[in-house]
Amino acid sequence: MSVFRPRLAVTLGDCAGVGPETVLRALACEELVRVCQLFVYGSETLLRRVADQSGLGFPESLTVRPRNRLTEAELSGERHVLIDDPFAEARTLVPGAVQEVCGRKAYDWICAAVQDVQRGVTSALVTAPINKEALHLAGIRFPGHTEILAQLTQTRAPCMAFFSQGLIVSLATIHEALADVPRLLSLQSLTRTIRLTEEACREFGISRPRIGVLALNPHAGEHGLFGREEQDVLGPAIRKATEEGLNVLGPLVPDTAFTWLLAKQPAPFDAYVAMYHDQGLIPFKMVAFDTGVNVTLGLPIIRTSPDHGTAFNIAWQAKASPSSLFSAITLAARMATRRHSAQPCP
Amino acid sequence: MSVFRPRLAVTLGDCAGVGPETVLRALACEELVRVCQLFVYGSETLLRRVADQSGLGFPESLTVRPRNRLTEAELSGERHVLIDDPFAEARTLVPGAVQEVCGRKAYDWICAAVQDVQRGVTSALVTAPINKEALHLAGIRFPGHTEILAQLTQTRAPCMAFFSQGLIVSLATIHEALADVPRLLSLQSLTRTIRLTEEACREFGISRPRIGVLALNPHAGEHGLFGREEQDVLGPAIRKATEEGLNVLGPLVPDTAFTWLLAKQPAPFDAYVAMYHDQGLIPFKMVAFDTGVNVTLGLPIIRTSPDHGTAFNIAWQAKASPSSLFSAITLAARMATRRHSAQPCP
Repeated sequence: MSVFRPRLAVTLGDCAGVGPETVLRALACEELVRVCQLFVYGSETLLRRVADQSGLGFPESLTVRPRNRLTEAELSGERHVLIDDPFAEARTLVPGAVQEVCGRKAYDWICAAVQDVQRGVTSALVTAPINKEALHLAGIRFPGHTEILAQLTQTRAPCMAFFSQGLIVSLATIHEALADVPRLLSLQSLTRTIRLTEEACREFGISRPRIGVLALNPHAGEHGLFGREEQDVLGPAIRKATEEGLNVLGPLVPDTAFTWLLAKQPAPFDAYVAMYHDQGLIPFKMVAFDTGVNVTLGLPIIRTSPDHGTAFNIAWQAKASPSSLFSAITLAARMATRRHSAQPCP
Repeated sequence: MSVFRPRLAVTLGDCAGVGPETVLRALACEELVRVCQLFVYGSETLLRRVADQSGLGFPESLTVRPRNRLTEAELSGERHVLIDDPFAEARTLVPGAVQEVCGRKAYDWICAAVQDVQRGVTSALVTAPINKEALHLAGIRFPGHTEILAQLTQTRAPCMAFFSQGLIVSLATIHEALADVPRLLSLQSLTRTIRLTEEACREFGISRPRIGVLALNPHAGEHGLFGREEQDVLGPAIRKATEEGLNVLGPLVPDTAFTWLLAKQPAPFDAYVAMYHDQGLIPFKMVAFDTGVNVTLGLPIIRTSPDHGTAFNIAWQAKASPSSLFSAITLAARMATRRHSAQPCP
């Protein structure tokens, strides 16, 4: 039996940010060649400019093809492929600046990559960071990738999760005012988030994941003394998930839930469901800075991305760490391989 | 000039918890003898029982006196003093259980200790942990120390802060439902919290403290896209504090504010003002577990306490780490010494 080597779609993100240079590093990484074949959605003109300016060099073994000229040979080949989108303006782009054309191209490449994952050309999507202001200049009104992907794949409520070797966290609410969080938590939405988290853990390779659900209120509300969401919403959602056979506990007192990480104690849970953005991301970014991976759950496709932004201040200088992108690629490859092996033979 | 050696009042907390055994360890600690003289508010009968059961032994050099029989010799002496409250029931107490008499005694000792700090017998208060349910059984309806101390010292709005070698955090709101947090933040309350935090830093020995104020909303609200508190309340409070000459910055994006701690980068701020309990305490307890100190700001007296609870599950077994209590005593001594040296000579 031959080893499955997944084809992954990788978008360059905002051209003026650190996306292109981290992708160049991924294309040059021997380790990644073994685990997957990359199909980069972007532009040769741009990548050569970034390669020159950053001193990273252009990977000459890369196959460069227009999207409509991909052949079976490339699809079944060994080499990484650049799906080249003609991009004359790339010659005059300014690194580190918000530019309309960067917003438009970033969006175009995401659309093409998603379409190709859906058609089965590739089996997962990895996205480099985009700039919201550039998108807005180009008339594309989304707060970020998650919302774009939800629209493109017609998914109602995707779930944002974060993966690292030490900690997995998913978010019950994402980019919401803190004042809106309590009323956005419902039995239905929470149960769905718990289910998606447990499914994702299985795709990460954890066979019977233990899920911890964080309380919303300090001290988990102290029996209703400050806040009743634990009794009224979180408790019922945890019971429902338990009845469905999931291994889930909570609501956990939030301020002590993550102390084991630095106290070098064994992990009490494989993954945590956080009620709001910063409850999950403050501890996650502390322990997984530079290596964390953002995973969107609940989409019909696999999607991961590095856990950092465009970092305009250091763009095209070969200063950006590619660790988080490497982790995002490795995780997407692992998830794609697992889905592949779970499918019945044709 | 003789070195000032402050007298500190230490309460035993809930007798059935780990308070008494950690105080026994403090009384036996040579290092602490040098920096301060401890006046322990509690009971000899109880301490001897805990000393026997835990195997820690009773410190025979301790001076034991009823509260109304303290003499000038003890006050100006070298030895630690136990202010002994007759407590026959101590013989039949059960470690690790919620008991009415423990709630009553814990409260009585706090009242006596506070009164004596206010009278100048001692110059700071250090409290071992109490149990809220035991207090309630005894008819004492407070959520915790902070509220008891506010009442006893007639302080309207004390501020809870947390001190460790690596991180100082103060809280703009404490034990409140998350849903109530946004409306509890006001220009006045925030400005007060910033001022108290900066004053406390000076008492900790930081001469021109840099204060970082955390945003309430994720990504600091993204220019009002999700939440406007940053523009409407936090921004004005930060400007007001800046106009008063304080070195204060913000609102800081919360999820990346603490990444420097584990990335081994230099501290960008000396202290942080968190908008709600878990925003400050999730990162604090991660990096300062076992050694963190809780400090109540805004009271007319100095008050510190260890950063843990009664830990009934391991009470009287000599298993509880005394590090946090030692840190609380050391910090209180440092603050008392600083206040003493700031006073004009009589």
